[in-house]
Amino acid sequence: MGHHRHPPSGFHLHPQLAEDTVPVFELALCEVRLMDDANHPWLVLVPRIADVTELIDLDAAQRTLLTAEIDATSRALNSLFKPDKLNIAALGNMVPQLHVHVIARFHNDIAWPRPVWGVANARPYAPEQLVERINSLSEALRQG
Amino acid sequence: MGHHRHPPSGFHLHPQLAEDTVPVFELALCEVRLMDDANHPWLVLVPRIADVTELIDLDAAQRTLLTAEIDATSRALNSLFKPDKLNIAALGNMVPQLHVHVIARFHNDIAWPRPVWGVANARPYAPEQLVERINSLSEALRQG
Repeated sequence: MGHHRHPPSGFHLHPQLAEDTVPVFELALCEVRLMDDANHPWLVLVPRIADVTELIDLDAAQRTLLTAEIDATSRALNSLFKPDKLNIAALGNMVPQLHVHVIARFHNDIAWPRPVWGVANARPYAPEQLVERINSLSEALRQG
Repeated sequence: MGHHRHPPSGFHLHPQLAEDTVPVFELALCEVRLMDDANHPWLVLVPRIADVTELIDLDAAQRTLLTAEIDATSRALNSLFKPDKLNIAALGNMVPQLHVHVIARFHNDIAWPRPVWGVANARPYAPEQLVERINSLSEALRQG
C-alpha cells in the first residue's frame, strides 16, 4: 500500500491475529487489520510494540497515539459504513498481544445487540469483496 | 466521599446504568460506578456529558481525560485484585449513553475466556461486601 515502516525490533504479530485478520494500513503506532469476517466491518489495531498486553503497559506517547488511532479508525468506519453503533474493546483473553477491536455495528447485524465475540462463526470474505473492502478502508484511513 | 462536583446541565445517568451499578467515586470527567455483580470486579466509567454515545463524540480535552481515567481505574483494579487480564470496552448496544467498562478478569472466573456480557446472570453483592468493595475502590482511586 505504499507504506512500509520498519517495526521496532522484537515486534511480531501473534499467529492467531495473523490467521484471523488481513493487513489494511499502517498508522504511526498500529497495524490496522481487517477481521476476515463478512458479518461485520471489523478492524483490529495492533500496536507495533513487543511484549505488551494491557493498555496501561503503553507509555504516555504511545497511549496518546493509540487513542488518536482508535478515533481515526472509528471515523473511517463511520464514513464508509454509517453504522448504528461503534464497539471498541481491548480484551485479549484469548490472544494476549495487545490489540483493540473497532467494530461497526448495525441493528440488523447477526449478533445485535450482543457483543460480536463468540456469537456467530466468522464468514470469510469472497476474494473480490476482500480486496474492495481493504481498498476502501485503506483509502479512508489514508485521507483521515 | 467528600467529592461533590456539579454535573454540567443536561447530564442524567441512564436509568439502566443507575439500576445495574452503584456509585464509587467522581473523577474529573467520569462517574466511576461498580457493577453490582460479585462475579467480577467490574467498573463502569460514565462521562458527565449530556447526549454523548460514542468515544469520537468527545472533544479532545474530554477524550484525553477519559483515557487518563480509564488508566487510573485500571491501575486501581490491578492494585486491589491482581487480575490476570483487564477487559476494557465501550459497547453501548443496549444502553446508548457513553460508558466504558473496565473489568478485572481471572483465568478461573465464571466467564473466562469469553467476554463477560451475557454469559452469567449478575450476582448482586451482599450488603457488607458491597460497602467493603466500594470503600476499597474509592480509596484506591483517591490515592491513584
